[in-house]
Amino acid sequence: MRTRDKLLFTPGPLITSDSVKEAMLHDLGSRDAAFIELIAKIRHRLLQIGGVDDGTYEAVLMQGSGTFAVESTISSLIPRDGKLLVAVNGAYGRRMAQIAKTLGIETQTIVSPESQPIDPKQIEDVLARDERITHVGAIHCETTTGILNSLREVGRLTTRFQRTFIVDAMSSFAGMPIDIRGWGIDLLISSANKCVQGVPGFAFVLARRPLLLEAEGRARSVSLDLVSQWKGMEADGQFRFTPPTHTLLAFWQALQELEAEGGTPGRARRYAENQRVLSEGMARLGFEPYIAPQHQSHVITCFRYLRHPNFSFKEFYRNLSDKGFVIYPGKLTDSDCFRIGTIGHIFPEDIVALLDAIRSTLEEMRIYPSKAVAEN
Amino acid sequence: MRTRDKLLFTPGPLITSDSVKEAMLHDLGSRDAAFIELIAKIRHRLLQIGGVDDGTYEAVLMQGSGTFAVESTISSLIPRDGKLLVAVNGAYGRRMAQIAKTLGIETQTIVSPESQPIDPKQIEDVLARDERITHVGAIHCETTTGILNSLREVGRLTTRFQRTFIVDAMSSFAGMPIDIRGWGIDLLISSANKCVQGVPGFAFVLARRPLLLEAEGRARSVSLDLVSQWKGMEADGQFRFTPPTHTLLAFWQALQELEAEGGTPGRARRYAENQRVLSEGMARLGFEPYIAPQHQSHVITCFRYLRHPNFSFKEFYRNLSDKGFVIYPGKLTDSDCFRIGTIGHIFPEDIVALLDAIRSTLEEMRIYPSKAVAEN
Repeated sequence: MRTRDKLLFTPGPLITSDSVKEAMLHDLGSRDAAFIELIAKIRHRLLQIGGVDDGTYEAVLMQGSGTFAVESTISSLIPRDGKLLVAVNGAYGRRMAQIAKTLGIETQTIVSPESQPIDPKQIEDVLARDERITHVGAIHCETTTGILNSLREVGRLTTRFQRTFIVDAMSSFAGMPIDIRGWGIDLLISSANKCVQGVPGFAFVLARRPLLLEAEGRARSVSLDLVSQWKGMEADGQFRFTPPTHTLLAFWQALQELEAEGGTPGRARRYAENQRVLSEGMARLGFEPYIAPQHQSHVITCFRYLRHPNFSFKEFYRNLSDKGFVIYPGKLTDSDCFRIGTIGHIFPEDIVALLDAIRSTLEEMRIYPSKAVAEN
Repeated sequence: MRTRDKLLFTPGPLITSDSVKEAMLHDLGSRDAAFIELIAKIRHRLLQIGGVDDGTYEAVLMQGSGTFAVESTISSLIPRDGKLLVAVNGAYGRRMAQIAKTLGIETQTIVSPESQPIDPKQIEDVLARDERITHVGAIHCETTTGILNSLREVGRLTTRFQRTFIVDAMSSFAGMPIDIRGWGIDLLISSANKCVQGVPGFAFVLARRPLLLEAEGRARSVSLDLVSQWKGMEADGQFRFTPPTHTLLAFWQALQELEAEGGTPGRARRYAENQRVLSEGMARLGFEPYIAPQHQSHVITCFRYLRHPNFSFKEFYRNLSDKGFVIYPGKLTDSDCFRIGTIGHIFPEDIVALLDAIRSTLEEMRIYPSKAVAEN
């Protein structure tokens, strides 16, 4: 018996289609021909989605969450005498820097407020001053807040200064247009359970081929050695260590559904519509977004707690969850916020249903329709 | 439409029950109460299976394959001035040593032939001589060959010499009795897709609690920091980074099916019967096992190639695969062998069906019933 699941308005794991989940109803041998073919098809399709399927880039899959792939990239690509500059405006930028520091890599950060995009001018200043910086890391969409950073401008700088550009596109790849080559992205990292709408279990890196070739032996890890992982996949088409076979089956199905929706442009249109319906509806309910509209992505939106004596996020969350709608707590260091994701197998009518549930929740909490004022 | 999958005679990913796979037909939010409860139940049940649910041990789950959990353990527990001794008689022992060396940990190996169990006498000699060795690592069942190593004797030594005992029980935990406390095992590592019969996506460590407490800050990695992972799970019940939610749902179902089969003893009986039927049938077909019967586990069995001019493993494998039976290639450095796993949701009647398929494959290859002689 299938019971109806709660709808997830989360940045991933997110709601996937039934057909994606049903693709997992098979056990495949990890060294069998059918599975090896599946890996090859997935890797090729990822390069196609990225617009870099001309032999200059490689797609490498890595077990674990997106963070594992970020660490794998940093650990495997940055040489002992390298230095990483990370532009930080949220938790994922901080995490990238933390990973590099833990690995003993010299690391510098440029920290912008979480409500503001990262600042290319500051990056330019640092790059002009410090020739020892070999790699620059940035987050495309900071799911901490849902803010979108302009990679085009950062990529122009890394190209001009000839530094390697590492992009965490975890929650944006396949959900919004990214011109990998045009923006000068050398290494792009994303995950199975984000805008491709697969289930969690692995992540992937689209990497400029020469960078992989020159990086052999740099990895500070066996499990997270991206170059060995790539060479293994090239040699026999397999993962070096047990792959999440079922997750990969689901991912292939998800890739086909992405194509059927019109690829990244089609998916981006739906997500943008989801976000438009959400932000307009939330405004009507008195919620104030944390990020200014011109910097807001359509991936996830951060709303300030209502400044009302009856508002308790815990109660709000539980009440919505009981109604079948799972939203996402905040992750900000300086403000009380919660987040609502608009990616996954959800549609504008689901957003409308969520808004209805929020309205009745506020009524039950005796907040609405009294004038609710967003907290500053 | 469900199509009948090939039967996997592999050491994992392996055949799981339909109900285990069907448990994945749900999307759960990774921070939602239902999922947090699931994590807690899984951790508790793992401690129960290990017989160490009295507060002295902790169960920590780690994303990725079993190797990720091995690396996580070594990376997080062994101090900078520690030294690891690994008893090696196959690929997984070598891998444990490789991981430690890559992490910059002083590492020594005692290498036994792949056809022989690891040698406690040699371990004793080294421990008596070298007080700098802080940790001893061993593989319970080396799936390279299917050989079983006697952990009881090694544990007696690590207890006497007061060293920390790390055990890779990847393919044996829940499939054969392990007396974790009695054998002096301090850290035991296994994986979701082995004898618990879940799907791949995470692994786990059963760890003596004081060892976790004293190891804070030792990890050479962010993603694979076992202590932070444990502390995170203790603090809010969650994974620090995106967990494979569907894999965890499948695992909980698998744990319940393990209990229904009579726990580890019940499962061990079925696996032993599987292996008995296999080894007797293979002997009748002229195949010689690589491992002597007294050292052979019931997890996986390694057979030498037939010494017959018509025998080609590639053809043999493909022919069996076409018939719906997936066996496993060899991994030996010195002999031409292949392997047949007897764990997973397979039963003696499946082994009989496999043996029939092998017989007809040999007939098609014009090997059987002519007297086939095993290669030496």
